Amino acid sequence: MDENTKKRLDQQFAFIREIDREKFIGRQTYLSDGRRKENDAEHAWHMAIMTMLLSEYANEPIDVLHTIGMLLIHDLVEIDAGDTYAYDEEGKKTQADREKKAADRIYGLLPEEQGKMLYDLWLEFEAQKTPEAKFARVMDNLQPMMLNAATDGKAWVEHGVHLAQIMKRNEHTAEYSETLMEYAREMFIQPNLDNGHIIEDEKK
Amino acid sequence: MDENTKKRLDQQFAFIREIDREKFIGRQTYLSDGRRKENDAEHAWHMAIMTMLLSEYANEPIDVLHTIGMLLIHDLVEIDAGDTYAYDEEGKKTQADREKKAADRIYGLLPEEQGKMLYDLWLEFEAQKTPEAKFARVMDNLQPMMLNAATDGKAWVEHGVHLAQIMKRNEHTAEYSETLMEYAREMFIQPNLDNGHIIEDEKK
Repeated sequence: MDENTKKRLDQQFAFIREIDREKFIGRQTYLSDGRRKENDAEHAWHMAIMTMLLSEYANEPIDVLHTIGMLLIHDLVEIDAGDTYAYDEEGKKTQADREKKAADRIYGLLPEEQGKMLYDLWLEFEAQKTPEAKFARVMDNLQPMMLNAATDGKAWVEHGVHLAQIMKRNEHTAEYSETLMEYAREMFIQPNLDNGHIIEDEKK
Repeated sequence: MDENTKKRLDQQFAFIREIDREKFIGRQTYLSDGRRKENDAEHAWHMAIMTMLLSEYANEPIDVLHTIGMLLIHDLVEIDAGDTYAYDEEGKKTQADREKKAADRIYGLLPEEQGKMLYDLWLEFEAQKTPEAKFARVMDNLQPMMLNAATDGKAWVEHGVHLAQIMKRNEHTAEYSETLMEYAREMFIQPNLDNGHIIEDEKK
């Protein structure tokens, strides 16, 4: 093997080893048995398969590989920056700065053009402008909502989540996928409003 | 939403909820901190990103989306059939039958054409005939090897693994990706032979 290939592989495997740490980043969502919470790697895997199956419901046609790639890598910054819970308003103030530093370090491990490719995918996800980034965002909202519903609203109850918070987080979901938002509203949200596991009073 | 769409979504989400259980299927590989073992969902996520980065080393050109899809779903049968350790010769005798039954049940949850698509992807992975299935197999061998090397051969030591077993499992790896096998031999296997964490004597 020539020296350049060896060096390139060393960089690629330094990154591949480093991202193993995403498996240690805990989220607030309980798995379907309600016994432990999910980590970022499991969450990304789940959304990637959901994209294979649900892309037909995107309001605008999407490139499935591009969307899956985005979902697979979009939480890697949390290796350094930690998971910021969707309804943690304090944590969100410093989130962008923490995540930018993390992206510089983690994607910087790769050969330059591959690092740039993944960094750009992450920025695209964050900017939420392309059809792929929009659909990825729908997955990022619906996957935990589906698990919360499967655990009878366990994480919603623990955090005392209000309907208004869920609707704010999903303010664009119907615009990106009308069908999926309609389904989520009926199957995931409504039953948990009916049983009081989501607080309907919209005042905080 | 019309009745057919509702029914289709119910099937899709029944599957999406069901596959959450892949996160409970433990493997024999330790994560890079050596403290707990990996599960199937984490393993699949890791290999999907590896494929995005390493496809350039496939001996035959591959369709990256097809390969990633295969890797994301190929262990779902273990939800029913359990993980069969690579060097468990007894377990391997009943593995094919257990996995076939699992595939029938799990992929049967989906709308018919989507179930067939994923079932076919799984069969393709198992048959190891296409360039994509061959490269997926390289990933399936190299990802745990990389983690074993990162943990100083912890799982190899625990199982008393011999070099001959690793080489048998990787008998086609060089044929599918010469560069990756050469790298793995030098960077993952050789150091663990040098320190005795892989047993060099090839007699069992």
